[in-house]
Amino acid sequence: MFKDATIDEINGSIELAWKAFHDYRKLSLKHRAAFMKAIAVEIDALGTSLIETAMKETNLPEARLMGERARTIFQLNSYADACEKADWLEARIDTAIPTKTPPKPDLRKMLVPLGPVVVFGASNFPFAYSTAGGDTACAFAAGCPVIVKAHPAHAQTSELVAGAILKAAEKCNMPKGIFTHIHSSGFEGGRALVTHTHVRAVGFTGSFIGGKALFDAANQRKEPIPVFSEMGSVNPVFLMPEKLKESAADIAKMYAGSITLSTGQFCTNPGLIIAVDGNDLNIFIDKLGEEIKNIAPGTMLHPGIAKLYNEKRISALAQKDVETVSVSSVAPKENQGTPTIATVHAHVFLDNPVLHQEIFGPYSLVIKCKDANEMLEVAKHLEGQLTSTLMATVNDVRENDELVEAVKNICGRFILNGVPTGVEVCLSMHHGGPFPATTDSRYSSVGADGIKRFARPVSFQNWANELLPDELKNENPLHIWRTVNNELTKDVIK
Amino acid sequence: MFKDATIDEINGSIELAWKAFHDYRKLSLKHRAAFMKAIAVEIDALGTSLIETAMKETNLPEARLMGERARTIFQLNSYADACEKADWLEARIDTAIPTKTPPKPDLRKMLVPLGPVVVFGASNFPFAYSTAGGDTACAFAAGCPVIVKAHPAHAQTSELVAGAILKAAEKCNMPKGIFTHIHSSGFEGGRALVTHTHVRAVGFTGSFIGGKALFDAANQRKEPIPVFSEMGSVNPVFLMPEKLKESAADIAKMYAGSITLSTGQFCTNPGLIIAVDGNDLNIFIDKLGEEIKNIAPGTMLHPGIAKLYNEKRISALAQKDVETVSVSSVAPKENQGTPTIATVHAHVFLDNPVLHQEIFGPYSLVIKCKDANEMLEVAKHLEGQLTSTLMATVNDVRENDELVEAVKNICGRFILNGVPTGVEVCLSMHHGGPFPATTDSRYSSVGADGIKRFARPVSFQNWANELLPDELKNENPLHIWRTVNNELTKDVIK
Repeated sequence: MFKDATIDEINGSIELAWKAFHDYRKLSLKHRAAFMKAIAVEIDALGTSLIETAMKETNLPEARLMGERARTIFQLNSYADACEKADWLEARIDTAIPTKTPPKPDLRKMLVPLGPVVVFGASNFPFAYSTAGGDTACAFAAGCPVIVKAHPAHAQTSELVAGAILKAAEKCNMPKGIFTHIHSSGFEGGRALVTHTHVRAVGFTGSFIGGKALFDAANQRKEPIPVFSEMGSVNPVFLMPEKLKESAADIAKMYAGSITLSTGQFCTNPGLIIAVDGNDLNIFIDKLGEEIKNIAPGTMLHPGIAKLYNEKRISALAQKDVETVSVSSVAPKENQGTPTIATVHAHVFLDNPVLHQEIFGPYSLVIKCKDANEMLEVAKHLEGQLTSTLMATVNDVRENDELVEAVKNICGRFILNGVPTGVEVCLSMHHGGPFPATTDSRYSSVGADGIKRFARPVSFQNWANELLPDELKNENPLHIWRTVNNELTKDVIK
Repeated sequence: MFKDATIDEINGSIELAWKAFHDYRKLSLKHRAAFMKAIAVEIDALGTSLIETAMKETNLPEARLMGERARTIFQLNSYADACEKADWLEARIDTAIPTKTPPKPDLRKMLVPLGPVVVFGASNFPFAYSTAGGDTACAFAAGCPVIVKAHPAHAQTSELVAGAILKAAEKCNMPKGIFTHIHSSGFEGGRALVTHTHVRAVGFTGSFIGGKALFDAANQRKEPIPVFSEMGSVNPVFLMPEKLKESAADIAKMYAGSITLSTGQFCTNPGLIIAVDGNDLNIFIDKLGEEIKNIAPGTMLHPGIAKLYNEKRISALAQKDVETVSVSSVAPKENQGTPTIATVHAHVFLDNPVLHQEIFGPYSLVIKCKDANEMLEVAKHLEGQLTSTLMATVNDVRENDELVEAVKNICGRFILNGVPTGVEVCLSMHHGGPFPATTDSRYSSVGADGIKRFARPVSFQNWANELLPDELKNENPLHIWRTVNNELTKDVIK
């Protein structure tokens, strides 16, 4: 529908972004924040046409899309507030001590923007992790121009949102090139974006294959650049003995909802459930199976995702010693994903890497362990995850210290007695995790700490106060928190 | 002299470090800090034997080594204080809002250690960037065991320091495997260290070839890990017109000292000096040449470095249109490096990548530009640097905004009217910079912010207060700064 950008067009847009970078990074935090808030206003102003377009392109229901739009607007506004508040800048000041031998110079440090950022949007979040989603908002807050490659599965939605960003850019007098929206269907366009010398960071949400290819391309550049790929996760859930005995049926009910929410199309979908085999686990499995039977298949985001889900699901169920426990009793229509639960013994799971893979959709595998030691074995052999969950009483936690530590060690968010689906947008959220969940476990793609992905520190040594950026001036004109001579303070330096 | 570790021995030491990791990371910040301070005490207790050994191995003078030992002890003590103070943990808390739709869970985030860290020491800092240097201190503070590969040029010095660390480990009841010291002369040992599945980060200070090889090996692992290679820099100095007119001779004198300090063997050595051609620059060059003539060659760290310096220096001076301005009037003895200054016109520099390379030793190249625009061209074409310096009046800075921004954009530390040599150890120091100065411009290898290199965030969702780490408990038992519901505070949560 939309014409692919040529390589020349891609290079041209990056050159423009590079020029814009030199103007944009000099704008005040207040000005950046105003731009971000203007984008939120323009997205809101798109009204029902945006929701209708997204419904057509993604098959997601209206309520979900309205919620996601509200979340996207909240992200833009709250990251704008965080941008202006400037905690993320990590301002540090050590004043001179001329009497020291050798004399200690005045040193002041803050984060500065990296340069133009390329964003690849996610198919499953057409607003919140796409064109004006978290990556774009964080890059703008950090002081970086953005080039978005539209996700082909919701290209029209992306066009509408891009239009809103450009409208806001014009209203706020942003430099030309602050934002570019391009379409590109093959890998060549993506490669051209990631390998251009003036692109300085990449945000990506999607498959392991796509995210890893970008990471590799970026590291093979003459000047490697950071790639923040969020690539999915099986989000293991550990059902601990005492908790399972207390409430097997309740947990099953809660998890049937989490596994099938949005037809399982969340990167935080619980794909593995681990427990000690026995009567309590049987009660859980029976109840989970019963619930799953009653949940109808849902239409997936696009035919490609539905096809992949069904192929991977069939392949997983066909693995040696995997037993299918329950399948939705309603037959799937075209492009629908069928809720499915299977079980396997831990020793089989440990020996078969196919069973460790994410199956993007409403599928979960229950791993039966012969004892607590085998649960620990499973925890130690799991790959990096966005989330891990313990369903546990206080005793369960206290009596399984080694397991608790092992589970914490593989994840970015550690949940107690809850479900992993549902990612709150706030500063204490970490949406990230050890490889292969992401390519950089040190950074979050949700919450205002995500701004730091697109910035780096610079120390100013011996600069006259009048020549320093406002963030570092003696009089603290922005009234921000700074660490001055090792103490956090908002005080003026005398 | 020392036997190379076998691959089996290397793997065994990593397994031990991995085991130690599970115990060490559970220790309190106080306990970690006590261990680090005990190392400082044990290093001090080595007394003159340490200095004498290092003098023999590195050819560095006694005063320099005593200063460096004091700096190493200061690093250990001040990073220990920072570890305990816990600002680096970035504790963030958002309390639950059960009345929200959907209910907002309690979320609390802090940094946790990555796992065993491998450190490759620097030849030019036998104490401060080697066995118990900044990387090791930061890793211990973060909660990570350390495996040090001794630098072969000061293997005996490294042995002594390793002994001090192990003594402190024993006194502080550290787990076995918290620290291992190995010798390995080929690349195979280094490769085995960096590619082992249980190694989770690498610190390196040295050549571009070595640092880049480790970076590539780490990124090609099944699970890539961060490599913090600090690989050197030419540290450009821009002499601005008004300042040059005011004080060409004084600047020349100051820079003659900086270029030849420690026989130029600093990663912050000023290797490029850029100015507009003309009478003021001629005064500067004449004075610099005069000074350099009077500075005697110094014995370099080891024969390999001396050989490389002389080869690179000869090759640079032989490049087309490079003019030798001044060479020390004292003939060099074996393994000495001769202070040398050359000049070249900017258009020649821009076209010849050989002239952009670091020449590790007392060498500097003056680049003559035909006007301010050509200075800007040079700034835009320089690679990433640890430092950049402006010698400038307030007017010079104000009238050359584009140049100032371009220079800031390529460096990690931006100095006004000073010399880049001399790296203060404090929180506001950024010792890092865009590639190829380092492999990760976002992190510093000097100052307590360097601790963050070896840690990653984990969010705890919905955990009972009694089960949370002390850092995140309601009562704030460690009395640390935390961001609670978006506000920095030390307050208790009620």
